[in-house]
Amino acid sequence: MTDAPGRVRRRRGEERGGSGWRADYRHVSNPFGPLTVLSEDEVEHIHGLALRLLSEEGLRVLLPEAREILAGKGMGSDEDSMVRFDPEVVEWAVAQAPATVDLVARNPDRNVHLGGRSVAFVPVSGPPHVSDLERGRRPGTLADFVDSVRLTQTFDILHMMGSPVEPIDVPTENRHLEMTLPILVDSDKLPFVYARGHRQVMDCFAMIRIAHGIGEDAFRANVHAWTVINSNSPRQIDIPMCQGIIDFARWGQLLVITPFTLAGAMAPVTVKGALVLQHAEALAGITLAQVVKPGAPVVYGAFTSNVDMRSGAPAFGTPEYVKASLAAGQLARRLGIPWRSSGPTASNAPDVQGAYETMMSLFGALMGGANMVLHAAGWLEGGLTASYEKLVLDVEVLQMLAESFKPLPLEEAEYAWEALTEVAPGGHFFGAAHTMERYNGAFYPPLVSDWSNFGQWTEAGSMDATHRATRIWQENLANFEPPPLADDRREELVDFKARRVAEGGAPPVS
Amino acid sequence: MTDAPGRVRRRRGEERGGSGWRADYRHVSNPFGPLTVLSEDEVEHIHGLALRLLSEEGLRVLLPEAREILAGKGMGSDEDSMVRFDPEVVEWAVAQAPATVDLVARNPDRNVHLGGRSVAFVPVSGPPHVSDLERGRRPGTLADFVDSVRLTQTFDILHMMGSPVEPIDVPTENRHLEMTLPILVDSDKLPFVYARGHRQVMDCFAMIRIAHGIGEDAFRANVHAWTVINSNSPRQIDIPMCQGIIDFARWGQLLVITPFTLAGAMAPVTVKGALVLQHAEALAGITLAQVVKPGAPVVYGAFTSNVDMRSGAPAFGTPEYVKASLAAGQLARRLGIPWRSSGPTASNAPDVQGAYETMMSLFGALMGGANMVLHAAGWLEGGLTASYEKLVLDVEVLQMLAESFKPLPLEEAEYAWEALTEVAPGGHFFGAAHTMERYNGAFYPPLVSDWSNFGQWTEAGSMDATHRATRIWQENLANFEPPPLADDRREELVDFKARRVAEGGAPPVS
Repeated sequence: MTDAPGRVRRRRGEERGGSGWRADYRHVSNPFGPLTVLSEDEVEHIHGLALRLLSEEGLRVLLPEAREILAGKGMGSDEDSMVRFDPEVVEWAVAQAPATVDLVARNPDRNVHLGGRSVAFVPVSGPPHVSDLERGRRPGTLADFVDSVRLTQTFDILHMMGSPVEPIDVPTENRHLEMTLPILVDSDKLPFVYARGHRQVMDCFAMIRIAHGIGEDAFRANVHAWTVINSNSPRQIDIPMCQGIIDFARWGQLLVITPFTLAGAMAPVTVKGALVLQHAEALAGITLAQVVKPGAPVVYGAFTSNVDMRSGAPAFGTPEYVKASLAAGQLARRLGIPWRSSGPTASNAPDVQGAYETMMSLFGALMGGANMVLHAAGWLEGGLTASYEKLVLDVEVLQMLAESFKPLPLEEAEYAWEALTEVAPGGHFFGAAHTMERYNGAFYPPLVSDWSNFGQWTEAGSMDATHRATRIWQENLANFEPPPLADDRREELVDFKARRVAEGGAPPVS
Repeated sequence: MTDAPGRVRRRRGEERGGSGWRADYRHVSNPFGPLTVLSEDEVEHIHGLALRLLSEEGLRVLLPEAREILAGKGMGSDEDSMVRFDPEVVEWAVAQAPATVDLVARNPDRNVHLGGRSVAFVPVSGPPHVSDLERGRRPGTLADFVDSVRLTQTFDILHMMGSPVEPIDVPTENRHLEMTLPILVDSDKLPFVYARGHRQVMDCFAMIRIAHGIGEDAFRANVHAWTVINSNSPRQIDIPMCQGIIDFARWGQLLVITPFTLAGAMAPVTVKGALVLQHAEALAGITLAQVVKPGAPVVYGAFTSNVDMRSGAPAFGTPEYVKASLAAGQLARRLGIPWRSSGPTASNAPDVQGAYETMMSLFGALMGGANMVLHAAGWLEGGLTASYEKLVLDVEVLQMLAESFKPLPLEEAEYAWEALTEVAPGGHFFGAAHTMERYNGAFYPPLVSDWSNFGQWTEAGSMDATHRATRIWQENLANFEPPPLADDRREELVDFKARRVAEGGAPPVS
């Protein structure tokens, strides 16, 4: 395994003689909280209002097949495709959804457990633009997509693969093929698949089966892929999203059902009002999935934030966002399923605003007990741009948080009684036996942070953290080595992609 | 009152038509946590080891008067000034210390309650250097000191005055006089007084009495000033610090007793070992204060961090720092007294490292339930530099945290049922009656954050958050108006300072 911690150790090792730190970020558990902002009565009230909204007012379901499936449970629709959801069926559906989900990557050490105290971090997914300090901001390309997949692969703290940037230079009918190939060849983390129509999803599932060397039954038996389902708030699920719910549920793959409820725009201007809508839409998606296949793996996605009421611009990492996240955790636990939060910012640059907004978002996510944090690294501009530097800077923060989650060691020697009595008043502990035995690897060695003094830092060029991050992503990409993959599987993947491209690919459904 | 929120409202109002936001940051209460990293047994074990360290090994007390005071309680010292502390006396002393402390500012609306769920933020205190983007990094001057006091005054979220930068251009014997004058004239927040010798402290107390228009008895009857006592870790309290404990305790003023226990340098290389030392030194200071005057107001100060073991450089906001902070809160609650934490960073610039290290520090402080957070805004370089931009950037974070602490409103209308049923699927809430009634003042309006889109932001000059902060401190200083102070008191303060300078001031004691 030659992942981030190893890479960091080597880099530091070359520079400074080795930290001795034993990093292990593949499985993170959060011992803290969860913190709460709602009383139990308020949680029940939101749940009740969401059920009432779905049953009395309904939710528009744009795919005929989805309406037929729901009608099979007695939930009819009107000529406007508006489905009235039966609260009893919704409650039944919630009860079918598993409390924890185990994700199976092609490298077993990359398997992810979602639920309980576990936390999985996923980098930014989906931006049309990409940026770095050397090349500026530009539309995403396949080359950037490949580099971003590789960069993600080098950091163990990023537990699952997203779709790091949209490769605008690839025709839309081939894009899913061109994206899935590097995800499977250059990474052994759990692959993301866009729900952009049945044929695209089937292509991607086929490629994942090739990478695993398994057939359809084995594929269905475990979760090998994941997607995000966004409702069209308010109260609507469009055709590709409905199709995605149906396909992923049928094939037993993970659905992260995430209403994007911006308070003041697509959702009410109050946090609680936005939460009612978020909860209703999530329940609708969960219900469709469970009706398709009881027990289908789903995650409760939460993405309630607010807009700037003067301009309508979306904002993230705000105080309202933090409270909505803590509340979302309570609502997900009410349902008894894992929940997903995010680490977004509205900043246009990988600057201090980007840092504090993302950290506020992470605070809401992690103190709310999120099991999955999407867009946890590299997101800028409300999701319009993926930043290489921001990804590296956020990885440092995620690593520090993961270290903060680790318990203090229990050994009596940790209290350092011998050293405390050995060192005289006004002395120092540098030479104490207790220190000498432990100094190598005693503390977390940073990835980006520079702790040199002002004089040393100035002599070295006064480089700020963002510019230091440039060197790190460049170095990680220069040193990239793909994870092991049997030659025949790689060849089969390349052949599959070439054949499907030759056949015309599969245009996205909208 | 023309403080920060008002100023922000005006500024935003001029630019964008008013946010309508009602900000109130003068009294902040933290509803969350506290989070813990130690079991109750571990807390007791650290407490027990600290008592044992103080009694068996002792702590060096360098001021003869302090040793005599402690000897009066049967705690003698050897020829090396080493005092063995009697655990029973220490426990008695802890029981004398008040569980909460009320601080009386010359403006009653600036009074601060320390204890329970309350949090007071204090900006960076004590750096020898100052920096801003326009003038660079330089030794502090009196002009910078005055500007920093004024800037601190303009933000309500900064609850107490520190000593924002050392005015190196003022002779040391007059420095306390020249510093205390602007603190009392340009600010109505609780003043900080350095413990740099008895005569300096008496001068400053006299000036504070003038500002309040009170005599000695009234001064003693309430807490009107505060100081920080740093032990010389390991296990030593020097002459000015001992004198400060005695003077502040006798006069009933606040002592924030803070060992600076850097794990791996002045403290053991393990977090738990450093905590034993921190706790022992804090207990020694608390004991001296309570023996001087039972019931003297004290705060348990915690400043355990770690060094970079490759260079010895101090580090802050590290995972080790976070865990030490959470543990410190547990130890302070074990004693039943308020506790102080900090918001430091080792970064050399107001950059992303500065942002994330300070936010990690704040995370440890606030999730640990700290009642007072010193160096919460403006600190750089491990405390060697005060940054104007960092202060503004940190104020934004502190305001966002304070907003996150506010409970969600309880009214049924918050759930927005009418709006949820009024807006059709796929529509938006901009024009809903529920939105129109609330959009003005619905969400926190940021101080520094820019939520415009990339095109607008680029046209406006692509200014990052740190450069935007420059404009804010410049504007706040340009618009500064001192808080009300009776002319006769101002004149008396100016006269007092002039007279004491003419008399030769009072050199610091070391």
